[in-house]
Amino acid sequence: MKDSAFSVRIEKMKEILKQEGIDCFLITPSSDMKYLCGYSIKGDERFLALAVAPGHEPFIIANILYELQVTETPVEQFAYWFDGENPFDLLKKELAERGIRTGTIGVDAAMPALFSLQLSALYPEARLVNGSPLVQPLRIYKDRQEMDRMIAATAKADEALRRCIGKGTYWVGKTESDFLAELAYEMTCLGISDTGACVAVGANAAVPHHKTGDTVIEMGNCLLIDFGGSYQNYHTDMTRTYHFGEPDTEFAEVYQVVLEANLAGEEAAKAGNELQDVDAAARRVIEQAGYGEYFIHRTGHGIGIDCHEGPSAGAGEKTKIAPGMAFSCEPGIYLPGRFGVRIEDQVLIEEDGSTRVLHQLPKELTVIK
Amino acid sequence: MKDSAFSVRIEKMKEILKQEGIDCFLITPSSDMKYLCGYSIKGDERFLALAVAPGHEPFIIANILYELQVTETPVEQFAYWFDGENPFDLLKKELAERGIRTGTIGVDAAMPALFSLQLSALYPEARLVNGSPLVQPLRIYKDRQEMDRMIAATAKADEALRRCIGKGTYWVGKTESDFLAELAYEMTCLGISDTGACVAVGANAAVPHHKTGDTVIEMGNCLLIDFGGSYQNYHTDMTRTYHFGEPDTEFAEVYQVVLEANLAGEEAAKAGNELQDVDAAARRVIEQAGYGEYFIHRTGHGIGIDCHEGPSAGAGEKTKIAPGMAFSCEPGIYLPGRFGVRIEDQVLIEEDGSTRVLHQLPKELTVIK
Repeated sequence: MKDSAFSVRIEKMKEILKQEGIDCFLITPSSDMKYLCGYSIKGDERFLALAVAPGHEPFIIANILYELQVTETPVEQFAYWFDGENPFDLLKKELAERGIRTGTIGVDAAMPALFSLQLSALYPEARLVNGSPLVQPLRIYKDRQEMDRMIAATAKADEALRRCIGKGTYWVGKTESDFLAELAYEMTCLGISDTGACVAVGANAAVPHHKTGDTVIEMGNCLLIDFGGSYQNYHTDMTRTYHFGEPDTEFAEVYQVVLEANLAGEEAAKAGNELQDVDAAARRVIEQAGYGEYFIHRTGHGIGIDCHEGPSAGAGEKTKIAPGMAFSCEPGIYLPGRFGVRIEDQVLIEEDGSTRVLHQLPKELTVIK
Repeated sequence: MKDSAFSVRIEKMKEILKQEGIDCFLITPSSDMKYLCGYSIKGDERFLALAVAPGHEPFIIANILYELQVTETPVEQFAYWFDGENPFDLLKKELAERGIRTGTIGVDAAMPALFSLQLSALYPEARLVNGSPLVQPLRIYKDRQEMDRMIAATAKADEALRRCIGKGTYWVGKTESDFLAELAYEMTCLGISDTGACVAVGANAAVPHHKTGDTVIEMGNCLLIDFGGSYQNYHTDMTRTYHFGEPDTEFAEVYQVVLEANLAGEEAAKAGNELQDVDAAARRVIEQAGYGEYFIHRTGHGIGIDCHEGPSAGAGEKTKIAPGMAFSCEPGIYLPGRFGVRIEDQVLIEEDGSTRVLHQLPKELTVIK
């Protein structure tokens, strides 16, 4: 392996596979592949996999069409097949020649049946197991390279929303979909891919997973924007809620409660605390303000290569917060038929145990008029 | 089934399953699911599947979170599971109660190993087979609803490119990525999702799968744009090549050859001909002009729910062109290190056997100055 960050991950992976009695782990295009060798590719009908086996160098099996791309990964051994050949014949030959056993074969959770069924047929005696749960414990603790990428990604996302919301009253009369299109445009210009957003006006903001639509942005309404995308393989996820025109007292009060809950959650997000402490701290603020029944989801989810991954910051999560963890802090209050407020950041626990709040866009109530 | 187009597809599917001896076909979120019940959803870790079995009504098994969405499909029977329950226990119970056998179970090609391995464990005696190849013969022949959606989708895509290229010399000094971002923005505004584009300036256009990058659009260069996205579940795919500033004689000549090849291919794309006739007709024009060695790919691919599906319009494809087929006609000439020209439309064979060229954006050489 050419890159030390990836070779460290591969060595840890091999150790885990050995402990679990897995002879070989085959990983098709997926977030696990991105994690283990940095290779970001959308899978297609041509079998392509990273093979990791205890005691052996990792190798990639791919169609020759992908030669240029796979040689750019830190992996150093390859086996290529050509159109018209059967990649599974090549796989069998490679595993045999390398002396890799095939009694228990791990496959990534995303491997399509198109391939896993052929693998079963190739090794009818083998036990096929889902290897992805064995990668999760590694992925939860980000290394320096991952932390740096998350910091860079969230700065890009901040800038995209800054550009859009900076247009101020330009948005009055435009729709949620208009806002989404422009936000996706700005993210794309900044190099973010796989963009997505939930843009919700007024009462729509009271539906946590509202589907962005044709509702018009008007003075006197709030605008909730939950959005993100992937940059250098790492995902961003942020929510801000704005108000067009002066808000009434209740909105301003609810906003302030959510802001304090967000800050309390982030204050509790420190090494040594348990993950459930983050949820409890944020929830306490909202409950004490009398809005407890309107905070209807957990406070945070882990984030990294996937927008949602481990660890979860919810009730009952007793895992200790530790360096390398990254998760969201996103309390909200949703008043059905009226409005909703959510403020979401990501927090990252640095190597020295300090807490870094990713996303630096201001959180104080911003009134656009 | 509430919608006649989908119930016709389900009935045909059941007939094929019966012929093939498949007791039950389980389809997770995929293009096959879109085809059989119109349900467009990105799969996640919660098991969700359409079950189709000969002699039985189709049903959807889903987490209760998806209740609202699945009841909007034409499917009329559902089985819901709740977080904390095992969806495979529910699946086993449902299949048993309905009297559906499980000797041979079809799964869609995209089903993640996360689910197919659990299915194998649930029915250790069952034979699991890839059912997707059995859907392809149906999907190749579009019905009226599908044709109408493809017509609507391509009109949207035409409009998106018209808006972008209409900015003329605005693009001089901008990059390929700038163009891509704006084209994706316009497609999004028009309701197209899953957008993608290959934007290539000058010599980059000589690489058929060039990765859009930072090359600047300048006077004296060609601009090749191959793009598309999904509208109402149906994909578009179009290529146009423009020239900024007056082209030299060779570019103009090459452009004319490609245009004539495109028109010859579309002329040959008629019911009763073979698919290979389309390739031969386009290729003949390019070969006769002396550029044969620079046309390095097949003339066309099928299109529908997927951007690439059956049937293929290439050498050796002896299948007769028939009503309902849709495929691209996209000859190109690629002069390495210099420039490339490709002109791509989709053709649709109407119910009466006539050929409709989708994408109506002008194809004559357009010089932007």
